[in-house]
Amino acid sequence: MSEPQKIELACPVPIGQYEKIVMAHGGGGRLMQQLIDQVMLKEFDNSVASEKNDSAVVMANNARLAFTTDSYVVNPLFFPGGDIGKMAVCGTLNDLAMSGARPLYLSCGFIIEEGFAIESLQTIVQSMSQQAKAAGVEIVTGDTKVVEKGKGDGIYINTSGIGCLETPLQISPSMIQQGDVVIINGDIGRHGIAIMAARENFKLEQPLESDCADVSGLVKLLLDAGLEIHCMRDLTRGGLVTALVEISATANKHIMLQEAALAVPDTVRSVCELLGLDPCYVANEGRFISVLPAEQAEQALAVMHAHPLGKGAAIIGTVEAANNGLVTMKNKIGTTRILELLSGSQLPRIC
Amino acid sequence: MSEPQKIELACPVPIGQYEKIVMAHGGGGRLMQQLIDQVMLKEFDNSVASEKNDSAVVMANNARLAFTTDSYVVNPLFFPGGDIGKMAVCGTLNDLAMSGARPLYLSCGFIIEEGFAIESLQTIVQSMSQQAKAAGVEIVTGDTKVVEKGKGDGIYINTSGIGCLETPLQISPSMIQQGDVVIINGDIGRHGIAIMAARENFKLEQPLESDCADVSGLVKLLLDAGLEIHCMRDLTRGGLVTALVEISATANKHIMLQEAALAVPDTVRSVCELLGLDPCYVANEGRFISVLPAEQAEQALAVMHAHPLGKGAAIIGTVEAANNGLVTMKNKIGTTRILELLSGSQLPRIC
Repeated sequence: MSEPQKIELACPVPIGQYEKIVMAHGGGGRLMQQLIDQVMLKEFDNSVASEKNDSAVVMANNARLAFTTDSYVVNPLFFPGGDIGKMAVCGTLNDLAMSGARPLYLSCGFIIEEGFAIESLQTIVQSMSQQAKAAGVEIVTGDTKVVEKGKGDGIYINTSGIGCLETPLQISPSMIQQGDVVIINGDIGRHGIAIMAARENFKLEQPLESDCADVSGLVKLLLDAGLEIHCMRDLTRGGLVTALVEISATANKHIMLQEAALAVPDTVRSVCELLGLDPCYVANEGRFISVLPAEQAEQALAVMHAHPLGKGAAIIGTVEAANNGLVTMKNKIGTTRILELLSGSQLPRIC
Repeated sequence: MSEPQKIELACPVPIGQYEKIVMAHGGGGRLMQQLIDQVMLKEFDNSVASEKNDSAVVMANNARLAFTTDSYVVNPLFFPGGDIGKMAVCGTLNDLAMSGARPLYLSCGFIIEEGFAIESLQTIVQSMSQQAKAAGVEIVTGDTKVVEKGKGDGIYINTSGIGCLETPLQISPSMIQQGDVVIINGDIGRHGIAIMAARENFKLEQPLESDCADVSGLVKLLLDAGLEIHCMRDLTRGGLVTALVEISATANKHIMLQEAALAVPDTVRSVCELLGLDPCYVANEGRFISVLPAEQAEQALAVMHAHPLGKGAAIIGTVEAANNGLVTMKNKIGTTRILELLSGSQLPRIC
């Protein structure tokens, strides 16, 4: 079989052809990549930022640290399976964990809209606190701003985090190798569809909860088991495919996914079919992939299956021989297609 | 002369009596303190957060680090003397410097409103980059979110920062001692009044620029000179008095200010008189106080006067004998008054 070739159907649009920010610039897809590359990274030209990992790995006083930031603008603020506070803590813990770091400290910055209910703020802060305590991290510094009614949307939260890198492994896209397997810790699409259903007041036959969770404890078990993890990535904005496309492009490797290995909850599948969405691009908040040598796959799966957040773990793909920077998916009848970044997102403001 | 006594004219209102967030909750004054104490710190109960320093001092991998975060919602985004990008970098560098840390790394989180001009974003990002490069720090990690038109106000920026503490000094409010002097690096009120004039389209007789600047280089000179600095604080939201009231209350010391020693630019004074504002509560973005032993004051002033951001440095107060947690001001005719936190802020969204 001939190797798949990437055909550029459309030239990437230079950011200069957009005069104004559109929603898709925040969607996690191609337009966001262009904005980051052509506006942010063009100015912030340093080697750490250019790696575009979930966390930056930096040295401070001879300590190897991970440092990350995320702002959360999810709508609605409360949804089945979580709220913006739980997400803001879990998301940043997960970003630290994806670099192999043990999370230590978080900051929180609140931008609150005038008129926001203090009771809701209390609930959100309690969620943050519970989630941080469960992970053994401290929220050590913060900031609160208030903006006029109509200049926000209830509350936006930024969390930044510091973790320490105790593993000697260098975990990043460029480390993936031919013969590696791609393992996911569960099914896909719950968060994005749960958020959309809550936002649009869909009546789902079966209730669906977001998978929002802190996976740093599970990652610690994988590292403690001595597994030689080459790369990890959580599957948030843009979902599974966006994460893999970024990894394959950075590593210039070919990642082949097996469609049959992907678990998609029935409700997620039904809603996606109804609305023409692809669950492979739907955001998750408690799912991540790890890429590691095939000979360690069995051990990795055993560690995952023993943890509540890894019960659905499965091998979903492999790193192939070709250096083509592509992600392909082999479907159930054996044909293969190339997966690419979406232009924007299927669903805005899911995180 | 009898010692000044604090008279509680009004009971502090428990946060529970407010059902909704009001603008004053973000103003830097008493209401914000109550929100932080009764909602945030009540949950995030750890010793580091409770210190309420500009930066948290934490240990990571045996390294002593400073960690801080701030969200910037200033309106307008561009103003004489700076823009939101310059502020977002300078403000976080200053917060790190106030703990005695040398700034190393910054993160940036953008929340951009749909329809925002990409050219403006480019200008803001360039400001951030220039300011970071001038300080020798790297912006190593970031995040971009886009919200619908009417759910933001152009752009909000969060910057978090990490610095390393190389000084053996412990710099915090609790370290101030009787006999210390309070030194400021320049005049007060420029930032707040420049922002208000720009926002309201005031025609000022003499143009006024914000004092927005990165003072971390000046702080480094003070530390390198071996000065035994007990406490530093930048004079942002709530201005000079708010910073000093927080310090005196934490340390339970009496700080006495000399009104005659405070430099207030003519334009700031005129606008304040016209509008009934007190320049001692107006925000600055490039001014800080340092508290250190009186016998080192001369040396500290010499270091400051030799630096562009310290030309106007002056001794403005002293730490007195009484353990009463008060700030008082002696005016030009010798009478003394107690200075307290405002309820909210005189000017919203100045940072």
